[in-house]
Amino acid sequence: MSKLIRNGTIVTAADMYVADILIENGKVSAIGSNLSAPGAEIIDAKGHYVFPGGIDPHTHLDMPFGGTVTKDDFETGTIAAAFGGTTTVIDFCLTQKGEPLKNSIQTWHDKSRDKAVIDYGFHLMIGEINENVLNELPQVIEEEGITSFKVFMAYKNVFQADDATLYRTLLAAKEHGALVMVHAENGDVIDYLTNKAIEEGNTEPIYHALTRPPEVEGEATGRAALLTELANSQLYVVHVSCANAVEKIAEARNKGLNIWGETCPQYLVLDRSYLEKPNFEGAKYVWSPPLREKWHQEILWNALKNGSLQTLGSDQCSFDFKGQKDLGREDFTKIPNGGPIIEDRVSILFSEGVMKGRITVNQFVDITSTRIAKLFGLFPQKGTIAVGSDADIVLFDPSVERVISAETHHMAVDYNAFEGMKVCGEPISVLSRGEFVIRDKQFVGRPGSGQYLRRAKYNAQTSNDQNEFQSI
Amino acid sequence: MSKLIRNGTIVTAADMYVADILIENGKVSAIGSNLSAPGAEIIDAKGHYVFPGGIDPHTHLDMPFGGTVTKDDFETGTIAAAFGGTTTVIDFCLTQKGEPLKNSIQTWHDKSRDKAVIDYGFHLMIGEINENVLNELPQVIEEEGITSFKVFMAYKNVFQADDATLYRTLLAAKEHGALVMVHAENGDVIDYLTNKAIEEGNTEPIYHALTRPPEVEGEATGRAALLTELANSQLYVVHVSCANAVEKIAEARNKGLNIWGETCPQYLVLDRSYLEKPNFEGAKYVWSPPLREKWHQEILWNALKNGSLQTLGSDQCSFDFKGQKDLGREDFTKIPNGGPIIEDRVSILFSEGVMKGRITVNQFVDITSTRIAKLFGLFPQKGTIAVGSDADIVLFDPSVERVISAETHHMAVDYNAFEGMKVCGEPISVLSRGEFVIRDKQFVGRPGSGQYLRRAKYNAQTSNDQNEFQSI
Amino acid sequence: MSKLIRNGTIVTAADMYVADILIENGKVSAIGSNLSAPGAEIIDAKGHYVFPGGIDPHTHLDMPFGGTVTKDDFETGTIAAAFGGTTTVIDFCLTQKGEPLKNSIQTWHDKSRDKAVIDYGFHLMIGEINENVLNELPQVIEEEGITSFKVFMAYKNVFQADDATLYRTLLAAKEHGALVMVHAENGDVIDYLTNKAIEEGNTEPIYHALTRPPEVEGEATGRAALLTELANSQLYVVHVSCANAVEKIAEARNKGLNIWGETCPQYLVLDRSYLEKPNFEGAKYVWSPPLREKWHQEILWNALKNGSLQTLGSDQCSFDFKGQKDLGREDFTKIPNGGPIIEDRVSILFSEGVMKGRITVNQFVDITSTRIAKLFGLFPQKGTIAVGSDADIVLFDPSVERVISAETHHMAVDYNAFEGMKVCGEPISVLSRGEFVIRDKQFVGRPGSGQYLRRAKYNAQTSNDQNEFQSI
Amino acid sequence: MSKLIRNGTIVTAADMYVADILIENGKVSAIGSNLSAPGAEIIDAKGHYVFPGGIDPHTHLDMPFGGTVTKDDFETGTIAAAFGGTTTVIDFCLTQKGEPLKNSIQTWHDKSRDKAVIDYGFHLMIGEINENVLNELPQVIEEEGITSFKVFMAYKNVFQADDATLYRTLLAAKEHGALVMVHAENGDVIDYLTNKAIEEGNTEPIYHALTRPPEVEGEATGRAALLTELANSQLYVVHVSCANAVEKIAEARNKGLNIWGETCPQYLVLDRSYLEKPNFEGAKYVWSPPLREKWHQEILWNALKNGSLQTLGSDQCSFDFKGQKDLGREDFTKIPNGGPIIEDRVSILFSEGVMKGRITVNQFVDITSTRIAKLFGLFPQKGTIAVGSDADIVLFDPSVERVISAETHHMAVDYNAFEGMKVCGEPISVLSRGEFVIRDKQFVGRPGSGQYLRRAKYNAQTSNDQNEFQSI
Repeated sequence: MSKLIRNGTIVTAADMYVADILIENGKVSAIGSNLSAPGAEIIDAKGHYVFPGGIDPHTHLDMPFGGTVTKDDFETGTIAAAFGGTTTVIDFCLTQKGEPLKNSIQTWHDKSRDKAVIDYGFHLMIGEINENVLNELPQVIEEEGITSFKVFMAYKNVFQADDATLYRTLLAAKEHGALVMVHAENGDVIDYLTNKAIEEGNTEPIYHALTRPPEVEGEATGRAALLTELANSQLYVVHVSCANAVEKIAEARNKGLNIWGETCPQYLVLDRSYLEKPNFEGAKYVWSPPLREKWHQEILWNALKNGSLQTLGSDQCSFDFKGQKDLGREDFTKIPNGGPIIEDRVSILFSEGVMKGRITVNQFVDITSTRIAKLFGLFPQKGTIAVGSDADIVLFDPSVERVISAETHHMAVDYNAFEGMKVCGEPISVLSRGEFVIRDKQFVGRPGSGQYLRRAKYNAQTSNDQNEFQSI
Repeated sequence: MSKLIRNGTIVTAADMYVADILIENGKVSAIGSNLSAPGAEIIDAKGHYVFPGGIDPHTHLDMPFGGTVTKDDFETGTIAAAFGGTTTVIDFCLTQKGEPLKNSIQTWHDKSRDKAVIDYGFHLMIGEINENVLNELPQVIEEEGITSFKVFMAYKNVFQADDATLYRTLLAAKEHGALVMVHAENGDVIDYLTNKAIEEGNTEPIYHALTRPPEVEGEATGRAALLTELANSQLYVVHVSCANAVEKIAEARNKGLNIWGETCPQYLVLDRSYLEKPNFEGAKYVWSPPLREKWHQEILWNALKNGSLQTLGSDQCSFDFKGQKDLGREDFTKIPNGGPIIEDRVSILFSEGVMKGRITVNQFVDITSTRIAKLFGLFPQKGTIAVGSDADIVLFDPSVERVISAETHHMAVDYNAFEGMKVCGEPISVLSRGEFVIRDKQFVGRPGSGQYLRRAKYNAQTSNDQNEFQSI
Repeated sequence: MSKLIRNGTIVTAADMYVADILIENGKVSAIGSNLSAPGAEIIDAKGHYVFPGGIDPHTHLDMPFGGTVTKDDFETGTIAAAFGGTTTVIDFCLTQKGEPLKNSIQTWHDKSRDKAVIDYGFHLMIGEINENVLNELPQVIEEEGITSFKVFMAYKNVFQADDATLYRTLLAAKEHGALVMVHAENGDVIDYLTNKAIEEGNTEPIYHALTRPPEVEGEATGRAALLTELANSQLYVVHVSCANAVEKIAEARNKGLNIWGETCPQYLVLDRSYLEKPNFEGAKYVWSPPLREKWHQEILWNALKNGSLQTLGSDQCSFDFKGQKDLGREDFTKIPNGGPIIEDRVSILFSEGVMKGRITVNQFVDITSTRIAKLFGLFPQKGTIAVGSDADIVLFDPSVERVISAETHHMAVDYNAFEGMKVCGEPISVLSRGEFVIRDKQFVGRPGSGQYLRRAKYNAQTSNDQNEFQSI
Repeated sequence: MSKLIRNGTIVTAADMYVADILIENGKVSAIGSNLSAPGAEIIDAKGHYVFPGGIDPHTHLDMPFGGTVTKDDFETGTIAAAFGGTTTVIDFCLTQKGEPLKNSIQTWHDKSRDKAVIDYGFHLMIGEINENVLNELPQVIEEEGITSFKVFMAYKNVFQADDATLYRTLLAAKEHGALVMVHAENGDVIDYLTNKAIEEGNTEPIYHALTRPPEVEGEATGRAALLTELANSQLYVVHVSCANAVEKIAEARNKGLNIWGETCPQYLVLDRSYLEKPNFEGAKYVWSPPLREKWHQEILWNALKNGSLQTLGSDQCSFDFKGQKDLGREDFTKIPNGGPIIEDRVSILFSEGVMKGRITVNQFVDITSTRIAKLFGLFPQKGTIAVGSDADIVLFDPSVERVISAETHHMAVDYNAFEGMKVCGEPISVLSRGEFVIRDKQFVGRPGSGQYLRRAKYNAQTSNDQNEFQSI
């Protein structure tokens, strides 16, 4: 059945206007003043923003880490995402050295297939480059539609790849049309500093931050940018947390390089002092990269405003405080890294960014949805409200004031990193391909209804802001 | 009568998709697949791009300069603009020290009223700041809807204002909601160098460039940025020509300042060597700032790509080669500065930018139209194709290859600065508020049909990319 | 009579070693181990440093300012300088627009001739450039040996010169072999801000600092550097107070330009909070540029360490707190700018710089003496301890701890800006051309014994660290 | 017997003056005008410069490399050095993983003991850090007086250390008082690019340069600087060849870090085009880092001038063209890296630097001798002409014009990299500890007369320009 969303204030990465939206067959078929659509279900959106559904480019659902597994899987995780106004996630598929990539991808399909309530795709971790991997990559791109590869410059002896691996991944990505993502921290230095801290009996959570200073993130970001320049390839730096890294990205972009940066809500609103909370509560705030001193926040906001950073990911990677985070009670290196953010990513940027005048509402849409779709080969199917696009739509009430809390959130963990934070604005209803997943703040979706997304190849013409150029 | 544009490829600053556009009462009333509109005139746009009409933020029509007057007035100038896909111009209203601002504005209304074939607005030059001027500014903004003021840092003893004037203009603009524009070159140095060149007998056109090196533009741009920072105000740097200025703008934006930069087609595709053409032909290429060495072009393109520069103006200021430019045959300082570009601004950016992969087609729309509308208080009335906006629309055929030439252009001058340049793409038909001005490459408009635009106040929330934020 | 200084630790800008120094006819004639010199007066320097006498490149003695006159004249000022280990001063000769330069120089000769107890030279202020001034400059250089010219970018309507004047001075200096000195602050902005502060009733001393923020110093420094680059000339930036200016100087030097920077003790050890002292005591700390926030100090120290700044001046310009500084009790703009520092310049750098490990003892000598001699045409007559040089020598005891105080200082003013500050090290005896001026901490000199110094022309080969290159 | 050098123009890092030098017991005992020294041998130096003997901080004598051994050993190498005005060399002692450091040091003592004609010391390569190495380092410093350690960031699978090794070496150096030296190039990238070039059949010498672009040197330099900052240690970057690396060093020094940079004559006067010489002649110019495009030279000169680079090494590492360099005739990776420069290092800097006005003669002394002595714990025994210092002295005639050539050089190789280059200035006589090694251009020394130098610990107070600060 078709639907007609009436009188909402439609916002895209470029526009804002009041109009009606007609949805047919899961897609937007018309936008106009006073559209008539006999037989369509009428949805009143007066006084609401109508946004394209958020896209979360950085999630770790049902992921093993340090002997435990993230609490949210593709069911609880995508339900929480939908409550927060996100209608697509791209999750990281981990790989094992020596094992075929397809096996890992199969594992991820198995984790997600019957659980996701919104659409989803995968990034693929690259831990080594050899003939087998190089041979398999074209299939991964062509057949699986996985067009983004993640390389870790940190986690020594676990995930960490050397510069040769990163460089060769960049070259392969250039050749085949993929985007390389990096976790940019100098793992060698971190490894030394963490070992030393533990040896010296410095085991509290704050040492997690002190042993991974912003300088090591800045250094690795600059190194990755340089390798990208040499390879004439393209790079997406995940979870940028500090001024040091922003500076390197801006410098690379000023040279004309295709380098992109993502930050996360935690770096925009929380700071290093949270790791010093008593009673081991600091463990709730253990991310890598770590939270930084407060002054970095303004640099990150400026970077979102002027375009040096382009996207917002959640880096969702949730562990219970009791039973998981407390594995590191005697040793901060054993605290599972990460936190539950998938649900509040969109709201926090709206409230802290748009309502406080730091970015415009169009930028908000671009940062949480449109640009991500363009970078990762999902545009224009996802990422906008335009004729022909999937009807992934959020009705958002900017006048609601609410408090984030573990008591009310929908993630499967026992705490919320933003506990007590007041935000303005809330998604009221959320549609995925024209069907309600959230309706009047209630979940009405179905596990398994989310579809796997084969994504298009990386295209500089699309990504460098925008849409694919087609000669017509 | 309503119109229905069918099957065009609609492009905005964010989107690209194929759909129909319904125009009623001069505005876009619906966009959709297979719209039906009984009684509407059908316009087939299959195979064409459908762009929002271009906005030229920088024109000098019917302007006196150095004892002569620009050749194009509001009639020939706006006709040529329309041929080139531009549907709005904002012209510079010159003022006289000691005279009420309103007199100058009246003069400009008289020049334009019965002549313009497309809509137009005015920027206002500020040559001095005193009590009279400060008292008059609020009226200029409120009553005339003139919300942008131009200050010259060059042209010593003519237009040049000192730092105090610029600073106080920035403060007044901040207070009243206007955007300050600067011509950023150090006039003191230029004045010395030009006098010296003439004294030494160096009278040829190339000395125009040699006596205004890029360093003086970089210096003045940095100074203007610093004054803007101190005044906590907003700045738009016109006609950025070189790496030196780009660097200063990028630096200021990295600090989070509201500073914007415009470049022009001439700086993107022509270079300093043109001033050395024999037989005084170099005089055709005398702009201020001057054309630069070729390597600056790549920096300008990178800046458009990564957002350090945001807009493209023409700086249209046309003089005949014979009878006007040749006033300076014996003395380059007497060559009237400027050239005829209003017609080809849009086409050159499309051909050199989009077709050569330097920017995306969405960026092209943003740079030539959308961002300009947002910065200068015209959005969303102008600058996009969205429900409720003026139907200022260009049907553009990207497959046409043509050669720019004075023989075929529509400007009233005897030469074309881009003579012989091949471009891909041409506006086929152009509508202003739903009425054809150009139809199938023929002018079908009417002098006097263009309306004067009272513009909204400067709004950081709009301008910093986008649309005005409204709490709804 | 000859003198033999025995067993001192001789320190130059390059060396440190224990040896004897033989002085004959006012000059160093030999340095060696166990020198024998029958008939020479023996001075035991064991346990003392033996430094070249300090050179203060920046003093204002007997200078009219704002309706009053500096308290220290060439007698009290040079006596105090000698107590502090300084054996040469270069004072600023002010000029009047429209009046021959030679008249001003004559006035300065009259002020100094019978008073100075150590040798001295003059810099000349340039307030305007016209044919008369240009004609007179060669004489000033050749006949008077004045080879450095000062231009003010601040003090609007008083000393301030426009960019054309600065640029033409740079060109003239290049042509004739002189060094241009600038007071780099944007006077237009300062003028506006100070007027506004007074209008708004903000009359306390702290507003002196708040109305001349570091940004205006950074801007003007960058502008002066750019003009120097265009003129291919040489520049010395006086009293650098902040990170903003250091950055511009370092940037210019990285391009290979001949640009030099001087800082002053007050900027290295005092900070902006001093201007907030109660009971109008803040007025004691009113300098232009003003004291800065404390964090700037580290940047200045780093710049001295790595060579981005090269010299230390005192900017001695002393006024009594009672009767002079309090002219501004109701209006900070009426507080005479400046303070008494000529006496403690050398000691403060030794104590805070060398004893705290920020710079080496050789750098200390270079910064307070050698480099100044080289830049201003006094080397090797002054600025070192070497065979053939004037025996301007300081015996310095690094083990003394003392407290700076107005009660014990030798300047003619009623307060000391460093009151209560502990310093390590004190000049014990000071010789000028082989004669004691200070002996065992007692003044034994004679007013009028100081000689006027005709200085050599600026020479890049000398100044860019060093000694004049001579092909021998 | 004592010696008296009469009437030479003595030049140190700070001074220049004409005087006599008395030498007793191998040391300078007095400097003065018209010294009398009954019984002393008189050496007339009128018209000559008298410089402190050069110190070459970077030589590879008798070193195995790629299956061959450098042609010059400690005998021919130090004889050639002496001819060129160098009186001290510090050679690199290579180590083997898993083997005690003392064994390697013993090997180097055996190579040098009976051969050197001038004094010499050793740097020690660090290829790995483990408990054994950490335990041995204090002995190396205390007993052997080896106070500088070299880490390679390039030569993958041969010398290359990872970031952890470099970082731990920096920490150990900080703790024990040593200076870490790095070869800064990203070996991972180079390894990939060289393999790829060979695979693609690109085997000519020019590919040596093309596979090690300046970007990889800039990256590694920045990384090493960052690690130094984190370790709060000290770093000396050897053989800086390009703008990219200079920029990183200047940036680090602006932060106040103790980071130093050395360049080499080849980078100052030769360029990448030499590698394209026909008939495999390009192989003569294969260094790592490689020669760069010509425009880098000006940046290096500016850096020497303004102090961003501080020293000049030769990186002497000589191989015959026939029989050694031609091992790589079919594969550039098999060309032994390095060249014969030990002899002309001093002359080239004098001729190209001082005579062409790029640096002063005092800077020349600092760069080739004084600063090196200070950084590597040899000052004031070496590196200056001052009372008490070793009489390592060069009599230098600046008026000689000569042509560098393999036919006349004294190195044991069959070509000269600077063949045909004209230089102004030549060492006429050279003394080591008061004894002639070269007299009137003839070798008069004796193999084995050179002494091994136990060097003092690294001392920031000494090195940061200068002399050790002693509280006396």
